[in-house]
Amino acid sequence: MKIFVANLGSTSFKYRLYEMAEEKQLARGGVERIGEAQSSCFVEIGTERRELVAAAPDHAAAVRLCLEQLTDPEIGCLDQAGEVSAIGFKAVHGGRASGVARVDNEVLQAMDEVGMVAPAHNPPYLAAMRLLHERLPEIPLVAAFETGFHQTIPERLRHYAVPWEWAENHLVRRWGFHGASHRYVSNRAIELLGREDAKVVSCHLGGSSSVCATRGGKSVATSMGMSPQSGLPQNNRCGDFDPFALPLVMQQTGKSLEEVLHALAEQSGLLGLSGKSGDVRDLAAAAEQGHTRSQLALDVFVTSVRHSIGAYLVELGGADAIVFTGGIGENRPEIRASVCANLASLGIEIDHALNVQTHDESRISTPRSHTEVWVIPTNEELVVARQVRDLLQEEGTTVN
Amino acid sequence: MKIFVANLGSTSFKYRLYEMAEEKQLARGGVERIGEAQSSCFVEIGTERRELVAAAPDHAAAVRLCLEQLTDPEIGCLDQAGEVSAIGFKAVHGGRASGVARVDNEVLQAMDEVGMVAPAHNPPYLAAMRLLHERLPEIPLVAAFETGFHQTIPERLRHYAVPWEWAENHLVRRWGFHGASHRYVSNRAIELLGREDAKVVSCHLGGSSSVCATRGGKSVATSMGMSPQSGLPQNNRCGDFDPFALPLVMQQTGKSLEEVLHALAEQSGLLGLSGKSGDVRDLAAAAEQGHTRSQLALDVFVTSVRHSIGAYLVELGGADAIVFTGGIGENRPEIRASVCANLASLGIEIDHALNVQTHDESRISTPRSHTEVWVIPTNEELVVARQVRDLLQEEGTTVN
Repeated sequence: MKIFVANLGSTSFKYRLYEMAEEKQLARGGVERIGEAQSSCFVEIGTERRELVAAAPDHAAAVRLCLEQLTDPEIGCLDQAGEVSAIGFKAVHGGRASGVARVDNEVLQAMDEVGMVAPAHNPPYLAAMRLLHERLPEIPLVAAFETGFHQTIPERLRHYAVPWEWAENHLVRRWGFHGASHRYVSNRAIELLGREDAKVVSCHLGGSSSVCATRGGKSVATSMGMSPQSGLPQNNRCGDFDPFALPLVMQQTGKSLEEVLHALAEQSGLLGLSGKSGDVRDLAAAAEQGHTRSQLALDVFVTSVRHSIGAYLVELGGADAIVFTGGIGENRPEIRASVCANLASLGIEIDHALNVQTHDESRISTPRSHTEVWVIPTNEELVVARQVRDLLQEEGTTVN
Repeated sequence: MKIFVANLGSTSFKYRLYEMAEEKQLARGGVERIGEAQSSCFVEIGTERRELVAAAPDHAAAVRLCLEQLTDPEIGCLDQAGEVSAIGFKAVHGGRASGVARVDNEVLQAMDEVGMVAPAHNPPYLAAMRLLHERLPEIPLVAAFETGFHQTIPERLRHYAVPWEWAENHLVRRWGFHGASHRYVSNRAIELLGREDAKVVSCHLGGSSSVCATRGGKSVATSMGMSPQSGLPQNNRCGDFDPFALPLVMQQTGKSLEEVLHALAEQSGLLGLSGKSGDVRDLAAAAEQGHTRSQLALDVFVTSVRHSIGAYLVELGGADAIVFTGGIGENRPEIRASVCANLASLGIEIDHALNVQTHDESRISTPRSHTEVWVIPTNEELVVARQVRDLLQEEGTTVN
């Protein structure tokens, strides 16, 4: 069974193609500048890479271009596009559609319903998925929602302390996100630790970040709540914020609620704090040069990760492992060191030499650290491909 | 120096009168049903108690009634009202007026400015303080803001990850509240532990609740942020909430932003979750009878306290003591037990017999608990009286 996993941006998309029999990646590729006169399209198959420039007026045309590259007689890995059993999407917020589902009008409507809760994520996904649903009816589309992994979180951590009917009728709950990554990491940690019931705190740190407490590979708490703007500060999204600041900001700036929420979703996070950038690489460089607001942004971020870890150590009654993943978690040893600083009294101690050297899956804690600390590169696309495979097999609908 | 400390409600007030030379409480009393034809007024001096019914049309008249009782030739402890050096207020949110200050028009305006941030607290205080300021010009009024204790919190924990100018120009910061209680408790813990540099997590749990991390008696982190609605779930206030839920709730219920915020400030918290009551005593009784939403409300509350404690254990790099105070913290052993459950791996273990027996200041942890756990009854009024005394002494204005 071959699964094509798409990662959509508003004017771009990237994909990976998997052969699920061996869970092997056959190809990866993508298209940029969708909608412009000259879109750029690339594919990598084994060690081969091809690029071409062509018009991809929309996401359906872009996917077609990619399928053509994949069936190219010279380098292609498919005989025909029909070999693709499904296109899987790592979709963000489906509200009541949480889990894995065929993309149909009901799923699209559920995503639309919570569009204003995930303004940076849902609208571009919805537009592209709708288009593919109409224009590529021959290929099944499957959405694997980021919220699905968190369905095991107990009720006491899913409810906000708000009027009951808001949860009952208006979808106001802690949904949690980054499910694909936390699922991959927590299950991989179980394998590495050799303990089925391992208690793991998974730190997915990147342009978008969250921390998740898992027990036996199941989510029991996570830092994002109702929206992907909540929890830790994100690159340009606010993280946890107090709604009672809104009327004051609105009154003093003359902005509407919509404008203030827009600022919280686009001009906040590390970018808002630093005034420089939402990228920790830029912030580290600027802080090095003495830019105090960049250092402050990094400190706010690290503090927020630390507080979530503390909350989850208590939630789990101690952890077997803390895992770092994501763009920052995998590649920024100085952030990992700051997050783990001064925790020896809680049984957490990293080995600074190991922390700096690591470039792949590895333990970075000292032998005496009661809680092991690991770096585990995430693989969200593989998780989505597995979820899509499982759905098709349950349905018994696939012919490939 | 005699200080009169007032605790204002919208139609009531309570006070304590202190002789600050020995930090001794001379009297306590209060007035209920202010504004009604028959207000009820009481005073307790030593073992004597007097009650009277009289008209107290407003807070100024109510204070006058109390001063009359205090100067009553038969039981009074004052020769004349002029012996009172100042009336001190445990004021909640002063925004830019954070600390201890004479109540003047500037302070009143600062409180007014953030009135919508603290809708349950500031408007009644403001109304009463304005009135006393006009009608009792002979007695100095001093406001000790609940935010003042938290001025030592580092910048990385005071900033939200929002556009910089919101903090610079619009007061959008984590202010923190319950300063008087956390100040009292953390300093008392230092005395009890005999360690000047003690790291203490102070849990003020009551109708309104917050957790505070202190080091050497100074606040370094606290769970309430911009508004007293944030942090832990309160009796009828929401605690931490995601502002991106607001547009969805507004759209689906047809309510205005003001109405939704009103619901978050008055119909949420333990009351909103349970649908029964915001009082943990009622919830415990209802849960006992099988009312699942009451049990859920208690579980949400306990979980939230636990997560804050975890965050602050990491913030402090381990704690010397966790202290419970406030109406719930001092009187509900089953809540304390739930908060401390399953934390032996983090070096926290309570002695269940001690926990149930205690009715006063005492340690409730086992000898092997690395972090001591204490119950310390709070004394917010004494803290306010001390702050008022210190201000008057600094000013050199008092003649008493």
